[in-house]
Amino acid sequence: MPAPGNVGTAAYPRIHSDRSVSFQLKAPSAQRVVLRGGAGLVKDALAMERGENGVWSVRTPPAAPGFHYYWFEVDGLNVQDPASYSYFGYGRETSGVEVPDVDSAYYQPQPGVPRGSVREHWYFSEITGKWRRAHVYCPPDYERKTRTKYPVLYLLHGAGENERGWVEQGRAQFILDHLIASRTARPMILVLDSGYAAYRQAPAGTNAWSTAIAAFEDVLLRELIPSIDASFRTRTGREDRAMAGLSMGGMQTLGIALKHLDRFAWIAALSAPPRQGFDVATAYDGVFRDADRFHRQVRLLWLGAGTAEDRFLAGTKGMHEALAGAGIQSVLFTSPDTDHEWQTWRRSLRDLAPRLFR
Amino acid sequence: MPAPGNVGTAAYPRIHSDRSVSFQLKAPSAQRVVLRGGAGLVKDALAMERGENGVWSVRTPPAAPGFHYYWFEVDGLNVQDPASYSYFGYGRETSGVEVPDVDSAYYQPQPGVPRGSVREHWYFSEITGKWRRAHVYCPPDYERKTRTKYPVLYLLHGAGENERGWVEQGRAQFILDHLIASRTARPMILVLDSGYAAYRQAPAGTNAWSTAIAAFEDVLLRELIPSIDASFRTRTGREDRAMAGLSMGGMQTLGIALKHLDRFAWIAALSAPPRQGFDVATAYDGVFRDADRFHRQVRLLWLGAGTAEDRFLAGTKGMHEALAGAGIQSVLFTSPDTDHEWQTWRRSLRDLAPRLFR
Repeated sequence: MPAPGNVGTAAYPRIHSDRSVSFQLKAPSAQRVVLRGGAGLVKDALAMERGENGVWSVRTPPAAPGFHYYWFEVDGLNVQDPASYSYFGYGRETSGVEVPDVDSAYYQPQPGVPRGSVREHWYFSEITGKWRRAHVYCPPDYERKTRTKYPVLYLLHGAGENERGWVEQGRAQFILDHLIASRTARPMILVLDSGYAAYRQAPAGTNAWSTAIAAFEDVLLRELIPSIDASFRTRTGREDRAMAGLSMGGMQTLGIALKHLDRFAWIAALSAPPRQGFDVATAYDGVFRDADRFHRQVRLLWLGAGTAEDRFLAGTKGMHEALAGAGIQSVLFTSPDTDHEWQTWRRSLRDLAPRLFR
Repeated sequence: MPAPGNVGTAAYPRIHSDRSVSFQLKAPSAQRVVLRGGAGLVKDALAMERGENGVWSVRTPPAAPGFHYYWFEVDGLNVQDPASYSYFGYGRETSGVEVPDVDSAYYQPQPGVPRGSVREHWYFSEITGKWRRAHVYCPPDYERKTRTKYPVLYLLHGAGENERGWVEQGRAQFILDHLIASRTARPMILVLDSGYAAYRQAPAGTNAWSTAIAAFEDVLLRELIPSIDASFRTRTGREDRAMAGLSMGGMQTLGIALKHLDRFAWIAALSAPPRQGFDVATAYDGVFRDADRFHRQVRLLWLGAGTAEDRFLAGTKGMHEALAGAGIQSVLFTSPDTDHEWQTWRRSLRDLAPRLFR
């Protein structure tokens, strides 16, 4: 069948019953066409075969379920599939394909499940000198219960993605709708901002990367949170504010939230990059040194990864075990057979959200 | 300067002071690279020149201000610019560039101007058998004045575009923010849906095009409007409901709204395709035959086009004049020096919105 979400009536990409995916591209002048994409779809580049009328095609091995980035490499040039909508990943717009999962209802809209809404939230950042756009999910009853205030989860995308990732690729809005409808999760607001920032004027003697990390921390704490609290009916105490992120966003979450426990009591790292030489006593300015103190402040430390993303899984497990050895409780979640990809993070959010604000 | 809205710190496209635009693409293996795009940017294809390291470049003549679609044609294949975000047009994702206008404040966010918010609105369509996503703009005070109900403008995109066009390319949300802040327009809700629909089961003996028109009409009247009225605090009388659209959407607006005056009292066609053999007496089932009756029902008939889009301007003027000859009042708006492109439609919305719901 044509992949769900193809543009118009496009016949390709096509999903086969074994979850392999067929792709086509018309490129009569091309000498060599290759399919590239996310780890759960194409481990390495797949050469495409030229057929009649200059139409190139290829069928992948069975893919992991869920969303996968992909693109064509035509004589060395990245080309997007006209049959696909675009998704921001790898620092650019790429094509994407959704491979059905037997367990997919939790991220699909369903009749009868009350829907929250995703809103664009624009705010001017003095720190960067630029307008920024966040996406904000408000739960289903937000419009009706006009005196109710809600806890907030700040949820970050990964490197190369942007503030639309959790909506378009992650479908966070539908995941929350389901969890809230079944009373599995408390109604909450999600804030999905871009994880990038650069100081309007960079401080002297700093490198671009560390400055970007610091600039985002500043934007988050001094501009985004106040702007959200001023614009939405939020609960503003630390016990009602969570921070989570995937991959680079997981690294940012650990770096920022563990440093600002006066602002966040719930912390989650999804497929965070392994930290070299993680030492419980010294990591994150020694926040793990006093387990009792840590547990009084941090209501949840959640760590997760897919079982197919070896390096990230090893780092995540290693951190969980080192923490356990030092008497620090954390939740370890693993997503079966998924790699460093959105199906891991959809499942992560499904596991994480019900644990928040309890 | 790099074009506003380039991905990250991309240096190209670059805008020059005469509004010409330079583009670059690295394509070492290419034999021929051509720049294509919207009428206000490249009238015909512009051949690009190969420079060092396989980087191709070109500088356009001075472009019209505003948003322009563009893409590269590399040896006959459409290639999007990795330096650009994607915008849905031409039935596929394309690159886009924003050329500054001296008169641009009205579609830019400004500190101090209260912001409305754009929300995704998902609804299941029994008529098409599919979930549909509309975008809905709610005015700045929507969250605070929780007893206030608002009039609604249904605003359609053009052929090849989709429900994000008025937000991403048109910046309708900022235009309305400004008009509402200055009390030039009444606070209103905008509904931006996809103009495409296909019956779950197509009626026998119909062709695809006429069926698509009818299917969209059905979706709009029987599903979208009820869904919006159930989900937002709308005023639901015909005097509080407007319909407008650009190009194909203008054609749809005239076809649907003039047929359903029990639902719409305010009607606008932006750069609608010229109608062959427009005859006041017979057009649109004779709705213009009785001018008094028409004026009692229709509070506004607004027609507009850019002065550089010859065919659309001629059709629009011709219709306006023929109506005037038959005693039917309509507003004629022209956008100086702009073609069949978004700057025409941004200006159109700025002129139109203040006239609605008065």
